[in-house]
Amino acid sequence: MNCNTPTDIAFSFSGFSQRSGRTGNHADGWGIAFFEEELGLRHFVDHLPAIDSPIADLIRKYPIKSRNVIAHIRKATQGPVNLQNCHPFVRELWGRYWVFAHNGDLKQFGPRLHGNFRPVGATDSEAAFCWLMQELAKSHATLPSVDELTLTLRELVPQLSSHGTFNFLLSNGQALWAHASTHLYYLERRHPFMPAELEDDELSIDFASCTTPQDRVAIIVTAPLTRNEEWMAFGQGELKVFVDGALHLRDAQWR
Amino acid sequence: MNCNTPTDIAFSFSGFSQRSGRTGNHADGWGIAFFEEELGLRHFVDHLPAIDSPIADLIRKYPIKSRNVIAHIRKATQGPVNLQNCHPFVRELWGRYWVFAHNGDLKQFGPRLHGNFRPVGATDSEAAFCWLMQELAKSHATLPSVDELTLTLRELVPQLSSHGTFNFLLSNGQALWAHASTHLYYLERRHPFMPAELEDDELSIDFASCTTPQDRVAIIVTAPLTRNEEWMAFGQGELKVFVDGALHLRDAQWR
Repeated sequence: MNCNTPTDIAFSFSGFSQRSGRTGNHADGWGIAFFEEELGLRHFVDHLPAIDSPIADLIRKYPIKSRNVIAHIRKATQGPVNLQNCHPFVRELWGRYWVFAHNGDLKQFGPRLHGNFRPVGATDSEAAFCWLMQELAKSHATLPSVDELTLTLRELVPQLSSHGTFNFLLSNGQALWAHASTHLYYLERRHPFMPAELEDDELSIDFASCTTPQDRVAIIVTAPLTRNEEWMAFGQGELKVFVDGALHLRDAQWR
Repeated sequence: MNCNTPTDIAFSFSGFSQRSGRTGNHADGWGIAFFEEELGLRHFVDHLPAIDSPIADLIRKYPIKSRNVIAHIRKATQGPVNLQNCHPFVRELWGRYWVFAHNGDLKQFGPRLHGNFRPVGATDSEAAFCWLMQELAKSHATLPSVDELTLTLRELVPQLSSHGTFNFLLSNGQALWAHASTHLYYLERRHPFMPAELEDDELSIDFASCTTPQDRVAIIVTAPLTRNEEWMAFGQGELKVFVDGALHLRDAQWR
């Protein structure tokens, strides 16, 4: 989720977490990270399925408001079910936290990690994230603009996605980058806000009752979360960047 | 807390968190980090006082078991009250997470950070942690033994503690290092276990009923947490290391 005003993710997370056992089989741990005021970060991971986790229960009930949130429910492909293999992963670069979650599977993948980022767990995903961070650190001496970062990521990502399925979300608290190699959908909610009904749970919300006309929210997901909104599919190999709750316009022009 | 078997911190945290407003004035945010199986890490921070925080409430009720836990309640000296200034801080080095919390105040302190660790927030504490990580990374190519790390820390720490009060806790999931420049106390609980009564809350526990004879737990705190146990004071400038719930013996011989 990427927004222009701090927004809670309780509604979306209620549906999403159902996919960790009830409406989906991603039950090998889960995690969520919330940026707060760009620099602050709350990071929660649990090896339990999100539907059974006391921490997920807290997230559903405690409306943490954030402008950039990344959540993940894991279906283990590489690496056992444990805490260090739960996404999202976090690292610091240029005095900012970076958060990364991956859906997919990279085969025959052993990136050359000669820099300052090493995986703690055993997933292909964390290795890919460490390589991305290493290469970003080599490409820029200090934090560049969102547009510069997007250009660098466009160069780097194909070197990873050539190894397999590489749908990912990445955020540094300023922007949210999303890459699709197979399935990814996004939705922009803005004025006039409408009611929405979850796909995975008996829950609906009328966003008009809890928003202001200035609010903008973008949601990016593997599969649409609601049944009555217009989700747009990413193209294969597309990297999009979201800023302030909308597809980044300058970036959109470049495509 | 450092233990030889995964142990929950609910009892100690119940008393400790009272000091964030009721029995103490460290009400400017709080945080806690639990290692799991050495490599996994759960990290919780909140800008609210620990007595009012829904996340602290979860920690008091959900018995997360860990062999190394670092908790902190903040009384802001440098840096505003926000999430990025809450301790403990986390970084990755040599494929392990490192967790750091500081009690004290370093004056006229601007360490030369030319390496790969930069503060995200505005505290002297996070700057000191980044400098320690930078210097550890320069001193060893890969993860050294606990004893080697202790020797390196003994060289580094005086360069920081010369700037002011520098009581800190540091863990990489294998060991817990504790340095006192003013106040720090520790306690080793082992067989035969006895009842304990909190100093800050109306709560007592009979550890004999929830332990095995092999269990060992070391607790290191700014001020004793219980009223009927024998807490030992650190000397000024002492750096101790705890492994498997006890003061590390080889280290103790060196002193």
